[in-house]
Amino acid sequence: MDGHSPRPQQRLRTLEREGSHNLDIESMDGGGGGDWRQNGSAAALLRYDDSGSGRGSVREPLLRKRTLNTTSQIAIVGANVCPIESLDYEVVENNLFKQDWRSRKKKQIFQYIVMKWTLVLLIGLLTGIVGFFNNLAVENIAGLKLLLTSDLMLKQRYFTAFFAYGGCNLVLASAAAAICAYIAPAAAGSGIPEVKAYLNGVDAYSILAPSTLFVKIFGSILGVSAGFVLGKEGPMVHTGACIANLLGQGGSRKYHLTCNWLRYFKNDRDRRDLITCGCAAGVAAAFRAPVGGVLFALEEAASWWRSALLWRTFFTTAVVAVVLKGLIEFCRSGKCGLFGQGGLIMFDLSSTVATYSTPDLIAIILLGVIGGIFGGLFNFLLDKILRVYSIINERGAPSKILLTMTISVITSMCSYGLPWLAACTPCPVDAMEQCPTIGRSGNYKNFQCPPGHYNGLASLFFNTNDDAIRNLFSNGTETEFHMSSLFIFFIAIYCLGLVTYGIAVPSGLFIPVILAGATYGRIVGTLLGSISDLDPGLFALLGAASFLGGTMRMTVSVCVILLELTNDLQMLPLVMLVLLISKTIADNFNKGVYDQIVVMKGLPYMEAHAEPYMRHLVAGDVVSGPLITFSGVEKVGNIITALRITGHNGFPVVDEPPLAEAPELVGLVIRSHLLVLLKGKMFMKERVKTSGSFILERFGAFDFAKPGSGKGLKIEDLNFTDEEMEMYVDLHPIANTSPYTVVETMSLAKAAILFRALGLRHLLVVPKTPDRPPIVGILTRHDFVPEHIHGLFPSLNPHKFHSTSMGG
Amino acid sequence: MDGHSPRPQQRLRTLEREGSHNLDIESMDGGGGGDWRQNGSAAALLRYDDSGSGRGSVREPLLRKRTLNTTSQIAIVGANVCPIESLDYEVVENNLFKQDWRSRKKKQIFQYIVMKWTLVLLIGLLTGIVGFFNNLAVENIAGLKLLLTSDLMLKQRYFTAFFAYGGCNLVLASAAAAICAYIAPAAAGSGIPEVKAYLNGVDAYSILAPSTLFVKIFGSILGVSAGFVLGKEGPMVHTGACIANLLGQGGSRKYHLTCNWLRYFKNDRDRRDLITCGCAAGVAAAFRAPVGGVLFALEEAASWWRSALLWRTFFTTAVVAVVLKGLIEFCRSGKCGLFGQGGLIMFDLSSTVATYSTPDLIAIILLGVIGGIFGGLFNFLLDKILRVYSIINERGAPSKILLTMTISVITSMCSYGLPWLAACTPCPVDAMEQCPTIGRSGNYKNFQCPPGHYNGLASLFFNTNDDAIRNLFSNGTETEFHMSSLFIFFIAIYCLGLVTYGIAVPSGLFIPVILAGATYGRIVGTLLGSISDLDPGLFALLGAASFLGGTMRMTVSVCVILLELTNDLQMLPLVMLVLLISKTIADNFNKGVYDQIVVMKGLPYMEAHAEPYMRHLVAGDVVSGPLITFSGVEKVGNIITALRITGHNGFPVVDEPPLAEAPELVGLVIRSHLLVLLKGKMFMKERVKTSGSFILERFGAFDFAKPGSGKGLKIEDLNFTDEEMEMYVDLHPIANTSPYTVVETMSLAKAAILFRALGLRHLLVVPKTPDRPPIVGILTRHDFVPEHIHGLFPSLNPHKFHSTSMGG
Repeated sequence: MDGHSPRPQQRLRTLEREGSHNLDIESMDGGGGGDWRQNGSAAALLRYDDSGSGRGSVREPLLRKRTLNTTSQIAIVGANVCPIESLDYEVVENNLFKQDWRSRKKKQIFQYIVMKWTLVLLIGLLTGIVGFFNNLAVENIAGLKLLLTSDLMLKQRYFTAFFAYGGCNLVLASAAAAICAYIAPAAAGSGIPEVKAYLNGVDAYSILAPSTLFVKIFGSILGVSAGFVLGKEGPMVHTGACIANLLGQGGSRKYHLTCNWLRYFKNDRDRRDLITCGCAAGVAAAFRAPVGGVLFALEEAASWWRSALLWRTFFTTAVVAVVLKGLIEFCRSGKCGLFGQGGLIMFDLSSTVATYSTPDLIAIILLGVIGGIFGGLFNFLLDKILRVYSIINERGAPSKILLTMTISVITSMCSYGLPWLAACTPCPVDAMEQCPTIGRSGNYKNFQCPPGHYNGLASLFFNTNDDAIRNLFSNGTETEFHMSSLFIFFIAIYCLGLVTYGIAVPSGLFIPVILAGATYGRIVGTLLGSISDLDPGLFALLGAASFLGGTMRMTVSVCVILLELTNDLQMLPLVMLVLLISKTIADNFNKGVYDQIVVMKGLPYMEAHAEPYMRHLVAGDVVSGPLITFSGVEKVGNIITALRITGHNGFPVVDEPPLAEAPELVGLVIRSHLLVLLKGKMFMKERVKTSGSFILERFGAFDFAKPGSGKGLKIEDLNFTDEEMEMYVDLHPIANTSPYTVVETMSLAKAAILFRALGLRHLLVVPKTPDRPPIVGILTRHDFVPEHIHGLFPSLNPHKFHSTSMGG
Repeated sequence: MDGHSPRPQQRLRTLEREGSHNLDIESMDGGGGGDWRQNGSAAALLRYDDSGSGRGSVREPLLRKRTLNTTSQIAIVGANVCPIESLDYEVVENNLFKQDWRSRKKKQIFQYIVMKWTLVLLIGLLTGIVGFFNNLAVENIAGLKLLLTSDLMLKQRYFTAFFAYGGCNLVLASAAAAICAYIAPAAAGSGIPEVKAYLNGVDAYSILAPSTLFVKIFGSILGVSAGFVLGKEGPMVHTGACIANLLGQGGSRKYHLTCNWLRYFKNDRDRRDLITCGCAAGVAAAFRAPVGGVLFALEEAASWWRSALLWRTFFTTAVVAVVLKGLIEFCRSGKCGLFGQGGLIMFDLSSTVATYSTPDLIAIILLGVIGGIFGGLFNFLLDKILRVYSIINERGAPSKILLTMTISVITSMCSYGLPWLAACTPCPVDAMEQCPTIGRSGNYKNFQCPPGHYNGLASLFFNTNDDAIRNLFSNGTETEFHMSSLFIFFIAIYCLGLVTYGIAVPSGLFIPVILAGATYGRIVGTLLGSISDLDPGLFALLGAASFLGGTMRMTVSVCVILLELTNDLQMLPLVMLVLLISKTIADNFNKGVYDQIVVMKGLPYMEAHAEPYMRHLVAGDVVSGPLITFSGVEKVGNIITALRITGHNGFPVVDEPPLAEAPELVGLVIRSHLLVLLKGKMFMKERVKTSGSFILERFGAFDFAKPGSGKGLKIEDLNFTDEEMEMYVDLHPIANTSPYTVVETMSLAKAAILFRALGLRHLLVVPKTPDRPPIVGILTRHDFVPEHIHGLFPSLNPHKFHSTSMGG
């Protein structure tokens, strides 16, 4: 699509060039996909981009093409099959389908329910298995690497050990970066922002494509094994969403894996529901926290929520929990190589005392404040670093791989080099664990120390991240780590976490954040050891909570995940207090890290609330022309021209004399339905209104169903003779005759709320006064984007943009 | 209001006469309260009632007056104070307040946030304390009663014992019924349906009035102590909601307990948020299940949900958990009389084996099926019994008390008489507890048996309900209960649970349902003892889950509550499976019990989805006249007449020549704002449009705020001279100029979704074609009620009404 002509927005930098390239492919792939062009807003887009580049780079979206949602808003299938109403798309109210749905209902509802639960079950099963497989692979690869290095160190061949360690890391890192850069650039990063945007209605195909799934799974395994300071939790969420999408869109047509019953899920809403389940399953698999997974999906991922969804996500996460439990039990018998206790962080703090006094509370408040400040700073710095990285990543796959390799070398040097700074400590006499640790993981790493001694810093650095977290959280080990070790570790992890996120490897933020938070929590705990009765392990947990609250701004889900990890409800009030404080403080500085990345990637995410400046505008203010409308019975040539020269996805249909007495709005037709209709070639010689039924008899109900992502018809696929171009086609049968409308004088804030609450794709603006054409314009998601509005009205207070929502 | 003139709907029976009387008081109390009359639908209401009585009693709402929502939809306060957008009410877009909010913002936002968290904290604290107090009182009163009876029985004075036991029960029951019948009839029953309806937008004052709170607390204590088969869980939810409402509406003006900072909460949305927190706190206090409480509020109570709410409810429930924990620790030392282990059901099944085989799974599926069938049957029978009771309760307070006393005597006879049917069992040698139990509660009740023996049936009947549940759930006691005992207990509890619910006592359904479910679960477990490895206590838990799923149709919240009670996550998949099956089966028969009661009480609850038949109608079909509109500058006399003769709460304002060139819709004014404006008496001699600002200067922003429930201005309070009646008033300043509108040809289903998703009170219907008046009518909640639509269109398939939502 870029090939057509140079466009002004090419001047904008891209965060990930291949990412946007990938999006291009998708938008060329079908009218139903994520076409960036907007109905009635082509002119506005240009204006927006001009003003954008005039305003300096900070406000520019980094992806060249915003992947605006432009998919079908008419789900004929959903409407026929079951009495589930649209949240997101609209129901065709035409007669043919009205007669249809009653007779079909019983059988179809049965198929629908069976299929729904089967899919949900499958999502749980597959995500659980993938989650386990991920852990198994990481533990074995990283374990082998660490064993090899340890062996060399025992022989005092320190340089060889370093080269072996660094070499392994480098190879793994390059492999991860290579598959990510060449196969699926969309798989880089956490994936949570993208999934969040998808569930908000931003329908970009590549986000959940099969290739993304593949790279996400293997890239994550390689990345984590490579010793980077990154986690597999975010990628697991993305993996779960990809699995759900793949299952929901009916397998793959290419491999003949489709199922006829799956046709019911060919609509936005059901697909989004499944992906929400996938997200929950991902969290459940990553943390073994079924309830936490549900709450994560509810709090962070989903934009529209219903009780039914609660139940389904919960079922999925329960399946995940069962699968994981079964597989881990299987591995207990030692059949899984180096799996050991499993890489799933799991620690039991229930033995610690959970009574607390006033000094403890002050310490906890202090932790909250620290978490808020560090969290806000982390988000700020991450934003800056991602902007620098985007310049590097833009240069192509080799640059990406090079960047990844550089970071890998730095990480290896830190994790191998820094432990040398720590002095050897004699093993405690009353150690509950083996000291020094023989083998792979453990609290007391020998490293360079003589027998009977351990290196505290190596226990943290020279370990998998999961083991490091477990060590930090361990209780009854007050004196294990020197203060200096903890300080060094904190600074290193904080910086490495920042520089690692933007590289071309699937990388979660949970683990670095938990690591850094737990470290400063332990520092505070150790400093206050004399005053407080609480265990430093407990302080580490609270520190992790505070930093999670400060960066991600999630609350309940983080709280429940931590509680499920620690298996102790007694901690609830303390964790909540810390989260509340850190989130409140950090909210004064900037947005949550995921929201920030969504904005930076230029994904047009719609908040549930309208921004304050929208109150000063009306719907008519932001509508921008030229508007293309069709007549109720339109000449085929006109339609084809309109489809070819614009990228609009919705066209108002207006009946004009002689079809009606006065110009009258019939409804809205969308591109994908027009293409199906045109393909059927039911054209007429005369401009007359038909009953419509003979046209629709040609089509089955599922012809108009939403195609699998990126798979619909394209205008380029259709060929017409000159004779056909001169004929007419009746658009009444496929028009959505009940589009949602607002009067042009409606407050923009209220229009935005309507648009968001009902999950619309197009909102028609009608004139307030008579004697004018019956339609003023169409509002799409794009028209509510702050940058667009600011482009139109530069006088509006700019610091109102990106205002954070207040008061939690 | 009934006194005005006899109305057709008086023919309808009332479920609770005093209940509706109470609603009358409230609706007379202020225009902002729950006035039953509807804008533009007076005629329709008559039609509806006629058709209703013509259709036989089954479809009739049992409350004479539906407490339709008619409160303010314009929350000036919310709009000024903070950038929180309306879900439910609409923002006034006029100039005065636009200038205002920027300058005020900082300080007000601070006050708002501080106050919000203070309120949430207070709700948690108070609900926790009330919950504990409730338990303490019940345990002491019921404990004394049981001790007294046991003493008499030990002396073999069985008849005296019965009279003492029955007498105590009777006195307690009468007291409960008396305060309920005379002080607050709205406090009878569970309260969950009413709170659910309130959170859906049905704004009936008495539901959450202080008197209701008082009766709910003490009535519940007396009722539970009286040995009825009812629980305190539902009432606790209602109590939490009442506490939240009382705090949110700014204390009580009467007792000078108001706080200036509380004025920010004088809008629908914040009040509803607080009440959602109250609900969650109630569940948390009843079951000591903080996460379960949040999920209950999310799944069952709230109609609109946001992430911010999640966090606030969670904070509330955490506070409740802390308060309860502290108070129970305090009581451990024995300072709380007979409190003992506390009446909060709590049992630990974690010692049981949680591995299961195929026969176990079959048994669990069987339990699910049984639960579904029994649950559906329970709901069906409860519906019938409530209809019979409504005839009795209608006759006045004495009838109510008499009915309660009858049920009390029957209950006493059952719980004292039926244990005599059971044979005495020798105490097991390896009993983990004292046998027979000396004192109040325990597994092995001595009853009439000789020393060294116990009466299994008495352990269930002759105990508090909480102790009976604990006994049923106890593990390692496979042979404690004879099969015959369990059968007798199940039948008795099932029937008593049914006949108890409708009496004039605060009565929860959780406990009877858990009791009955646990009993048949234990029966199944005992029957399958030879095949299955699972403990009968575990089966009892699963039985309780299946029956809860079958009656209440809650899923995740029940699941999490049970898990939090048993403190064992291993049970998760089993509980989910059972719930899934029982809910699916029972959904084929009827609605959940709370939904059923909502329908029966005639509360116009709006489902999130539209009913299928609504697709066949358009918005214009259900709009009914006569419509009263005002001119932009209207004669005072006309306004006063309209306010006096109708009960409408929203009036469209139309500018006509000479004020505009053609008739043009200005917006919507609501009754409460009109009354404030009229009270200000800013009238003009001439019919001219003003700038509006001088009018609004007279008023503070909070003059238009939503008053405390049932406290607003009334038209009867205002007096006008004849001269004033002839003057004009400019309605432009107070008109909501951005009302949500739909075109008359909009599908009714989609209009309903719009109405529900945005939480509207009025939806304007505009004409499709020009050359007609700019407004066709107003849709209110009432116009979407199935009975109303069916009254207008009897040809629509009636069995489509009350269709259950499909597929969970």
